[in-house]
Amino acid sequence: MENGLSMLVVSAHSADFVWRAGGAIALHKKNGYRVKVVCLSYGERGESAKLWRKGEMTVEKVKAARQEEALRAADVLGAEVDFFDLGDYPLRVSDELLMRLVDVYREVQPAFVLSHSLKDPYNFDHPLAMHVAQEARIIAQAEGYLPGQKVVGAPPVYAFEPHQTEQCEWLPNTFLDITEVWDLKRRAIECMAGQEHLWEYYTRVAQQRGVQAKRNIGITARRSIDYAEAYQRVTPQVVGDLS
Amino acid sequence: MENGLSMLVVSAHSADFVWRAGGAIALHKKNGYRVKVVCLSYGERGESAKLWRKGEMTVEKVKAARQEEALRAADVLGAEVDFFDLGDYPLRVSDELLMRLVDVYREVQPAFVLSHSLKDPYNFDHPLAMHVAQEARIIAQAEGYLPGQKVVGAPPVYAFEPHQTEQCEWLPNTFLDITEVWDLKRRAIECMAGQEHLWEYYTRVAQQRGVQAKRNIGITARRSIDYAEAYQRVTPQVVGDLS
Amino acid sequence: MENGLSMLVVSAHSADFVWRAGGAIALHKKNGYRVKVVCLSYGERGESAKLWRKGEMTVEKVKAARQEEALRAADVLGAEVDFFDLGDYPLRVSDELLMRLVDVYREVQPAFVLSHSLKDPYNFDHPLAMHVAQEARIIAQAEGYLPGQKVVGAPPVYAFEPHQTEQCEWLPNTFLDITEVWDLKRRAIECMAGQEHLWEYYTRVAQQRGVQAKRNIGITARRSIDYAEAYQRVTPQVVGDLS
Amino acid sequence: MENGLSMLVVSAHSADFVWRAGGAIALHKKNGYRVKVVCLSYGERGESAKLWRKGEMTVEKVKAARQEEALRAADVLGAEVDFFDLGDYPLRVSDELLMRLVDVYREVQPAFVLSHSLKDPYNFDHPLAMHVAQEARIIAQAEGYLPGQKVVGAPPVYAFEPHQTEQCEWLPNTFLDITEVWDLKRRAIECMAGQEHLWEYYTRVAQQRGVQAKRNIGITARRSIDYAEAYQRVTPQVVGDLS
Amino acid sequence: MENGLSMLVVSAHSADFVWRAGGAIALHKKNGYRVKVVCLSYGERGESAKLWRKGEMTVEKVKAARQEEALRAADVLGAEVDFFDLGDYPLRVSDELLMRLVDVYREVQPAFVLSHSLKDPYNFDHPLAMHVAQEARIIAQAEGYLPGQKVVGAPPVYAFEPHQTEQCEWLPNTFLDITEVWDLKRRAIECMAGQEHLWEYYTRVAQQRGVQAKRNIGITARRSIDYAEAYQRVTPQVVGDLS
Amino acid sequence: MENGLSMLVVSAHSADFVWRAGGAIALHKKNGYRVKVVCLSYGERGESAKLWRKGEMTVEKVKAARQEEALRAADVLGAEVDFFDLGDYPLRVSDELLMRLVDVYREVQPAFVLSHSLKDPYNFDHPLAMHVAQEARIIAQAEGYLPGQKVVGAPPVYAFEPHQTEQCEWLPNTFLDITEVWDLKRRAIECMAGQEHLWEYYTRVAQQRGVQAKRNIGITARRSIDYAEAYQRVTPQVVGDLS
Repeated sequence: MENGLSMLVVSAHSADFVWRAGGAIALHKKNGYRVKVVCLSYGERGESAKLWRKGEMTVEKVKAARQEEALRAADVLGAEVDFFDLGDYPLRVSDELLMRLVDVYREVQPAFVLSHSLKDPYNFDHPLAMHVAQEARIIAQAEGYLPGQKVVGAPPVYAFEPHQTEQCEWLPNTFLDITEVWDLKRRAIECMAGQEHLWEYYTRVAQQRGVQAKRNIGITARRSIDYAEAYQRVTPQVVGDLS
Repeated sequence: MENGLSMLVVSAHSADFVWRAGGAIALHKKNGYRVKVVCLSYGERGESAKLWRKGEMTVEKVKAARQEEALRAADVLGAEVDFFDLGDYPLRVSDELLMRLVDVYREVQPAFVLSHSLKDPYNFDHPLAMHVAQEARIIAQAEGYLPGQKVVGAPPVYAFEPHQTEQCEWLPNTFLDITEVWDLKRRAIECMAGQEHLWEYYTRVAQQRGVQAKRNIGITARRSIDYAEAYQRVTPQVVGDLS
Repeated sequence: MENGLSMLVVSAHSADFVWRAGGAIALHKKNGYRVKVVCLSYGERGESAKLWRKGEMTVEKVKAARQEEALRAADVLGAEVDFFDLGDYPLRVSDELLMRLVDVYREVQPAFVLSHSLKDPYNFDHPLAMHVAQEARIIAQAEGYLPGQKVVGAPPVYAFEPHQTEQCEWLPNTFLDITEVWDLKRRAIECMAGQEHLWEYYTRVAQQRGVQAKRNIGITARRSIDYAEAYQRVTPQVVGDLS
Repeated sequence: MENGLSMLVVSAHSADFVWRAGGAIALHKKNGYRVKVVCLSYGERGESAKLWRKGEMTVEKVKAARQEEALRAADVLGAEVDFFDLGDYPLRVSDELLMRLVDVYREVQPAFVLSHSLKDPYNFDHPLAMHVAQEARIIAQAEGYLPGQKVVGAPPVYAFEPHQTEQCEWLPNTFLDITEVWDLKRRAIECMAGQEHLWEYYTRVAQQRGVQAKRNIGITARRSIDYAEAYQRVTPQVVGDLS
Repeated sequence: MENGLSMLVVSAHSADFVWRAGGAIALHKKNGYRVKVVCLSYGERGESAKLWRKGEMTVEKVKAARQEEALRAADVLGAEVDFFDLGDYPLRVSDELLMRLVDVYREVQPAFVLSHSLKDPYNFDHPLAMHVAQEARIIAQAEGYLPGQKVVGAPPVYAFEPHQTEQCEWLPNTFLDITEVWDLKRRAIECMAGQEHLWEYYTRVAQQRGVQAKRNIGITARRSIDYAEAYQRVTPQVVGDLS
Repeated sequence: MENGLSMLVVSAHSADFVWRAGGAIALHKKNGYRVKVVCLSYGERGESAKLWRKGEMTVEKVKAARQEEALRAADVLGAEVDFFDLGDYPLRVSDELLMRLVDVYREVQPAFVLSHSLKDPYNFDHPLAMHVAQEARIIAQAEGYLPGQKVVGAPPVYAFEPHQTEQCEWLPNTFLDITEVWDLKRRAIECMAGQEHLWEYYTRVAQQRGVQAKRNIGITARRSIDYAEAYQRVTPQVVGDLS
């Protein structure tokens, strides 16, 4: 049942939210959250190599195929998706589109936000997506933008896991146990027919993070964690208890 | 009433736990935690200038005065204190004393640990205390040290606030609302007769962190936070929800 | 009396120069400097919450109110202000406006420059202002821009204090004693009627920095420093004596 | 004789490739590489002070003089040069020009790429050139950009030496022995008539890096290295032997 | 057949060289290197949990079991092992033992050295081993230590992969293709009966690094890399070609 | 004539103060400072290769030769030298010797302190010397150490230039113009007969830093700076003017 809370994912390309945050989406959806995903592009140039090799391809066909895959995965996970269709390699975000993302924040009022790592030397679209996600959040907090609308608070921002984590200076300070929704994440992953070579890769990522998560549990009974997602929380937290 | 949980504070000098973690101690004590503080030294050389200026002083008198102040403050806050009396300026910790701290971990089984910042160019005793707190924790986790004893899990480690935060490369990623126990922290602070010049300083620190904490709250109703303590969590957390 | 020297402040919003550099302005003015402040925007969206809540507000009214406050504060401190009126949340600076700032450098020939921290995850307008201040300085040094004009030397650049210093990776390596002009800074602060909640906050900032400044004085007679401003010098200095 | 391999240099201004990579160009040319240099601008504003002081100067004359110097140097070193003529102080690169650089990558198929340091507080054109060099490389790798063309692999990227290395956070992790081509580099340097004050400076740079290179040789017979260039490799390497 | 070269591995505990550098050992041995491994401790306290749980255990039995496992693994890989037996949790290295390691350097004359990451908040024995490996190398280079002996050159130093890489601020800038010796590494891993829970973990590590290695290959024909080890090279390299 | 001020240099080996701070010593001496140098070791093992190669050498002979060279250089520069003779490669500093250095601080009451870089992967003696210099300074500030003695204030601490600056993460934020005393520094350098290969190297260092210093001068008349020394100031400064 719904809990009245929402989460927002800002994804540079249309598959990123699956590999990197599919577990968080499925888990929070299961626990009553509304999940909104914004895909800034379809990744038609940079992340669709297999589709292009099929021959007889056009940009429109590739985008349509990518959209279909993303929608099927989102359906498995329980997410609504907005496609901004801004193009990739390079992704560029105009101020007009930035303000469209601000409007999403205002409408969704997310309890937290997920996007890419702050740096990624292998993919400049990724940190741009994070930058935009942060800038839109700041503007959505401002009373002077569309005065009268409900502003957003200070929802925590997390960077999900990039491909080559160390090169991206990304620090996993938060582990999310996704064992109970792993089957959904795996099913969503398998919707990505164009990137089958990554299925096992990201399954192993979840297993490795599961092992590491277990090593970081405090005094509570050692849960069995078989699969986890790792995140870098980039905003401070306000707590009432430190354990 | 007690909740069966414990917390551990490793303090380089006998007043540090008051200025830097007094709110956390009072708050968790109030919520049922057992609180253990280890004071590695009395700070007799480096943090007792006012006492020395009284004249007719000896190291023994200074240490006795510092112990009495610390015990009165601990009493206000609700903490048990162990004094290791290792000397300060410079603090040195032998392996024998390190193992004594390991034994404290094993006995206390803390749900979390508080100590100093990882660096402090103004005070080399402080980062040494943190180093020792971390090393003792690692040894306390090892099955091969005193086999048969209950090992500790992976209690989170936090660095409390140093005096000149930016010089110490200390990052406050966690704010603890201490408004409801502020009066206790202030009373404990006032037990530190030898460092009266710091009373107002640390009161202002708590007010500034209170203002900042309010700015970092997510979607929950904006609590009124008048006083806060800031911490740098240095170990990852394992969670089941990201909001 | 005038000393023939000038200083330049590049302020993202129309109140930043007061909170963050009001003491430096008043002190150097008193000592004979000409002080030029460039306000890139009025902060009408992001830093005028109280004004918007009054009702019956328009962007023009907010900007007018902010301008009036800034001018009154500048008058107290002794500064000339240029308003570029570029808008905030988000601030955007075109190359045309960048060159206008270059022209200010050429005209003012500042002995030093003050602007925001290099990073600020809470406010993307701030680091942009610093970036622009640095880029304009570099262009103003180039003989090939408007050849024949007097180029600028290498005036030191300082980042003044941001709101949450540690999150901004800002390092206070320079303390300025502002005790003798504190009353002017406080009066300028009180011109900011729309942000009254910050008056005490920034008063405490000045007190805390005063305490820290005293701790960093070398062998000279311990001055009494009650109020200070902290800065991060981001350019090297050339000296003839190291004490 | 030619070895079928190519290298690419992305130079912000028309002289940078000489000071910073002249040895690498001459050495690899000698060893059979094709060398392509892209000069994004002529450096007509920021790096032509001596020319402007001659009087009777126009931008066109300065650019012509700079081009002639660069071509003579390139001729000495053995490089082909493309001049993009984008202007400097500030350099700006439109997406159209970015894609022109992508096309250079596709045509040249470089075995490695040289450009500026990732940061440079003294010259914002430099890190922009590196950013563009990296972004173009990423796009040139994408199967979806001009499908059917041969994409590029993952050519290593190196940052050559900036003027004030430490301020640029540039780390020389790779030393290239240029002793055998030093005379060519010096002759190319001397083509830069407009910056004669730098001839001895960069000669001393080569000597200092030569001394340092000798200190970093493993077990192989200590070669005599009199001149070297230093580079920061910014991409990982894949090897079959670690010595 | 032998190539006259040697490599040195400095391992904090007796199993580290297997998990972290087993592929490098087997590969270089196959290519003719002599391989020397120094195990500073047996890891009897901290890394032998399974053995301790067997009951009826003593430190001597655990050490003997660990030694036997390590020797069998070394035999599979082709390494000679020296056991320094210094104890673990905490590892401590006296100056006397440091000089014993210096003597190993002098005798082995390694072409390169492998040890742990420079930081590891989960295991303080690991960075100490690296520190000692570096300090011994420096002393072995000094003509004034045992004058007349052959000093060592400047063999490159690599940090092999720690358990939680990002927490250790470890950067994999070098990938070694170990596909052809993977079966040997797996067999060596399986000698570690006491840590069976890690077999699959480190197999997945090798697979993930294999995928990443492929992404970082330049223009050479895309080799099939199924398994790789990642290293952080911490010393500069001197080269004659940049591709 | 004397100005009543003093400076302190803490040098790991007996020649470091010449290469790295000879200009500062000569300049301040000329301007009336008393200069005290503490040489923690003679550098007999690690920095006396040429002496050892002479044959018929003993440690005593090497130390005597090094002492003589250092004293002659100190005489040229105008410094008093204390030799602690602690040995090098590795340097080790007991608490007893640390306290001897504290006593030097108390006696000298330095206006500023010079020592090595905070890190140096090529030479572990260097950062240890800086560590000890900082720790002794902190203890010398403590009222509780030898109560009644005059404590020291907060003399600024500078790291002088290491050999491979970037590898040491050393940042030259302060340039000292040594043009007027360059002849003295060169003469002192030439006292170091055992390291003649470094004479030209450090002459070029001074020339390069001179060029860089000129680039960092503000509005004051461009002095002619031919030789400079660079320093990293590691403690904040308290100023009354920002230009």
